Amino acid sequence: MAQNISLSVQSLDNRIRDLLAAGDLQGAARLLQEAHPANIADLLEGLDEDVRLQLFRNLQLDHAAEVLDEINTEATLDLVGAISNESIADIIEALPVDDAVDVLSELSSERAEQIISHIEPEEAREIEKFLDYAEDSAGRLVNSDIARLAEGWTVAQSLEFLREVGNHGLTLAYLYVVDREGRLIGLVPLQKLVTERPETPIKAIMKTDVVFVEATADREEAARLVAHYDFFAIPVVDARRRLLGVITHDDVVDILQEEFTEDVQRQGGSQPLEGQYLATPIRVVFQKRVGWLLVLFLTEMLTGTVMRVYEHELQSAVALAFFVPLLIGTGGNSGSQTTSTIVRAIAMGEVQLKDVWRLLWHELRAGLLLGIVMAAIGFGRGMLWNTGVPLALTVAIALFAIVLWANIIGAVLPPLAARLKVDPAVISGPVMSTLVDATGLIIYFSLARWIIGL
Amino acid sequence: MAQNISLSVQSLDNRIRDLLAAGDLQGAARLLQEAHPANIADLLEGLDEDVRLQLFRNLQLDHAAEVLDEINTEATLDLVGAISNESIADIIEALPVDDAVDVLSELSSERAEQIISHIEPEEAREIEKFLDYAEDSAGRLVNSDIARLAEGWTVAQSLEFLREVGNHGLTLAYLYVVDREGRLIGLVPLQKLVTERPETPIKAIMKTDVVFVEATADREEAARLVAHYDFFAIPVVDARRRLLGVITHDDVVDILQEEFTEDVQRQGGSQPLEGQYLATPIRVVFQKRVGWLLVLFLTEMLTGTVMRVYEHELQSAVALAFFVPLLIGTGGNSGSQTTSTIVRAIAMGEVQLKDVWRLLWHELRAGLLLGIVMAAIGFGRGMLWNTGVPLALTVAIALFAIVLWANIIGAVLPPLAARLKVDPAVISGPVMSTLVDATGLIIYFSLARWIIGL
Repeated sequence: MAQNISLSVQSLDNRIRDLLAAGDLQGAARLLQEAHPANIADLLEGLDEDVRLQLFRNLQLDHAAEVLDEINTEATLDLVGAISNESIADIIEALPVDDAVDVLSELSSERAEQIISHIEPEEAREIEKFLDYAEDSAGRLVNSDIARLAEGWTVAQSLEFLREVGNHGLTLAYLYVVDREGRLIGLVPLQKLVTERPETPIKAIMKTDVVFVEATADREEAARLVAHYDFFAIPVVDARRRLLGVITHDDVVDILQEEFTEDVQRQGGSQPLEGQYLATPIRVVFQKRVGWLLVLFLTEMLTGTVMRVYEHELQSAVALAFFVPLLIGTGGNSGSQTTSTIVRAIAMGEVQLKDVWRLLWHELRAGLLLGIVMAAIGFGRGMLWNTGVPLALTVAIALFAIVLWANIIGAVLPPLAARLKVDPAVISGPVMSTLVDATGLIIYFSLARWIIGL
Repeated sequence: MAQNISLSVQSLDNRIRDLLAAGDLQGAARLLQEAHPANIADLLEGLDEDVRLQLFRNLQLDHAAEVLDEINTEATLDLVGAISNESIADIIEALPVDDAVDVLSELSSERAEQIISHIEPEEAREIEKFLDYAEDSAGRLVNSDIARLAEGWTVAQSLEFLREVGNHGLTLAYLYVVDREGRLIGLVPLQKLVTERPETPIKAIMKTDVVFVEATADREEAARLVAHYDFFAIPVVDARRRLLGVITHDDVVDILQEEFTEDVQRQGGSQPLEGQYLATPIRVVFQKRVGWLLVLFLTEMLTGTVMRVYEHELQSAVALAFFVPLLIGTGGNSGSQTTSTIVRAIAMGEVQLKDVWRLLWHELRAGLLLGIVMAAIGFGRGMLWNTGVPLALTVAIALFAIVLWANIIGAVLPPLAARLKVDPAVISGPVMSTLVDATGLIIYFSLARWIIGL
C-alpha cells in the first residue's frame, strides 16, 4: 500500500487535538508546520473556526501563505475576515504571483483592493496585471516566477545564471528563451541543458516550435493542451506574444478536477457548487438545485396534459396506466445512458459538431438493439399480467419506439447545445427523462388508440 | 486564443490527404513526422484502416513507437494485428518500459508473449516484471527510466553523472537517492541540484520525507497523491522499498481523465466503455448498456405492481393517474441531483464513510426546503386543473414527501455502496429514479386513500 496520507493526517490530527486540549497552542502550531501545506489545510478545515484562527495566527509566514493557498474558499473567507489587511498583505506577499491572484480572487473586490494597497508597489502592480484577466481565463493562473534565457547565451552562461538566481521557487523544468522585447522564441528543458556541452549556444539546442496560449484564452483550453501533449507546463503570452509566465501541471490537474466536478453536477441536473459539498451552506445547495428542479417540474407538467387528453382511453382501460411509469422510466434511463456517454465524448474532444450524423447513426443502431430487447421483455411482462395481446403488443411497440426515440434525442441534443455555445453537460439525465416522459406518453397512447382501438 | 491544435491538425490533415490522393505515401509520412506524436495519433485514427497501416509502416522507428503509445486501443489492435511480431518488437524496444507495458497490456496475452520473445532479453525481463502487476495497479505505470544518485555523492559528482548518462528520455525533474540495496532514501529536485554549490554532499540537500507508493497499490491512489501534493512525479517501490521508478504527472492526468469518464458513464446508468465512443463497435455499446437497462426495467416493474394494488382508487378517480409521471419524475430528478453531488464528493475524498450522518443532515434540510417549494407549486397546479382541494392536497404532500425521501436515500446509498466496496458511481441517476418510482407511488396512493378517502 501507499504511504497513506489519510492515516498520517489522522495521527497528526489526534496529536494536535491533544496539544490544543492541553492549551499548548504554540506546540500545536509547531507540530502542524512539520506537515505538508496540503495536509495542514485539510487539518485546519476540520477544526472549529476559532481554533483554526488561533493556530493559523501561530504559523510562520511562509507556512501561513501556503496554507491560505491550499485551503478551501469558505475557510479562506473565515480566516481573511478575521485578520487585518496588513497581516494578510504580508502573507500574500510571501506567495508566488499566481497563488496571490488565486487567493485575492476569492475575496470581494473591495477587500482585495484594500489588501493590495498594503502590498509593496512593484508586486502589487504585477498582481493587478493578472487580476485584470477574466475569471476563467488562462491569465488568472499564470506563474510568472520562471527563468528567462536571453537568445545570445551559451549553455554555461545559462547554468551560471540559474545558479545566481538560486532556487527561490522558480519553476525551472522548462527554460524559456526570449528576444529583446521579451517575446517567446524558444524553449529548452532543464534536463537537456544540464546534459549539453557548456559552450553550446542556447539557440542551437532550443526548440522553436513551442505550443503556447494567450492569457485571454479559456483556462480549459490551456488544460486541454497540457493534457494532450503531456506537458509539464505551458507558456502564456500577451497579445504581443511577450512571455508572461507559465501554467504548470498541478494547476492543470486542479482545473480538470474542478471542471469534472462541475460537469458531474450539471449531469445530475443541478448548477455546480463552487466549494466542497459539506462546506457549502444549505441555502446555497438549495439555490443551485431549485432552478433546474422547477424548470423540469414545469416541463414535466406536460405529462399531465397528455394524460388528460387520453382520459377517455384511461377510463376505458385503467390497465393502460399500470405501464406508464415503466415506459417513461425506461425511456429516461436509455436517454441518460446516451447523453452521459456523448457529453463526455464531447468534453474529451473525441467528438465534434461535424460528427453529429455519425453520432446519430451510432445511437440509432444501439437504440434499435436495445429497443428490441426491451420490447420482447415488455411483451412477456404484459402477457404474464393477463392484460391481453393487444395491450401487451402496445406496451412492446411503445417500449421499442421510446428507447429508440430517447437514443436519438440523446445523440442530437448535446452537440446541438455545444453549437448554441451552451455547455453540453446541461443535457443531463433529468433533462432527458423529462423530455422523454411527455413525448413517450404521446407515443404510448397513440399506439394504444390504434392497436386496442379504444 | 491559443495556438489552436485542432486547426493546425486540420490543415496538416488536408495536406496529408492531398499527398495520399496523389499516391505520394513517403511524402505523406515525411510530413506526418513533423507533427507531435499526439497529433499523428489523432490523424491516423481518422484515416481508413489500410491507409493508416501504410502510413504507419513508413514512419521512422521512434515515431512509430510514440504513435503506438498515443493511439487508441482499437487502432492499436488494428495496426499490431497487421504487422509481424519481429517488427512490433523493434518498435516496442524503442519505447520507455512503462509505455511498452502499456501497449502490450492492450494485446491478448498470447500475442504479447510472442512479441516479448523477440525483444532483447534484458529489456524483456524488465517489461515482464511490470506486466506482472495487476491491471489497475501503480506498478503497470512505472517509468523505470530515472536517474538514481548514490547516497555518498556530491552535487558535482551528481551533475557529472547526469551529463554522462545524457538526455535519453530520462525523467530528471526529481533525482532519487538510493542506498546500496537500491532502497529509496531521499529526493533532490533537479532545480535544487543545479543551484547548489558543487562540493555540497547530496545527503545534505536531499529531502528524506518522501511520499511514495508501492507497486501493488491502486493506480488511483497514486493519482490522488500526486494531485493532493501537486507533485511532478511519485516514486514507486517494491515490497522491500527498492525504487522501481516513477509515475509522472502526465500519467496522472490520463488516470484522472479515464476514471472520470468511467464515473460519468456509470452515473448515466451504463457500464463504462473502454475506448473512445465513436471507435467502440455498436455490439460493445449495446453490451455495456443492456445489463443495467434490464436490471432497472425489472425493478421498475414494481411500479406496475403498486399501481395494480391501487387499481380500485385509480378506477374511482382516474385524475390520480395524471400526476403519476410528474410525481415520480420530480423524485427521480431530486434524487439524481443529490447522488451526483455526493458521489463526486466521495471520489474527491471530501467525504468519508464516517460523514454519513452529516451527509444525511445536509440532505435532509435541503430536501425539506426543496420539498416545500415543490409542494406549493404542485398544490397550485392541482387547483388550476380543478381537481378539487383533496387531490391537490394529496399531490402537494406527496411531492414534499417524495422529494425528501429521494434526498435521504440519495445521501445514504453512495456511502453505503463505498462501504460494500462497490463504486459509489453505480448509484446513478437512473438507479435513483427507479428506486424512487415504486416507493414514491406507494407514498402517493397511501396519501390519496387517506386524504381523499377512496
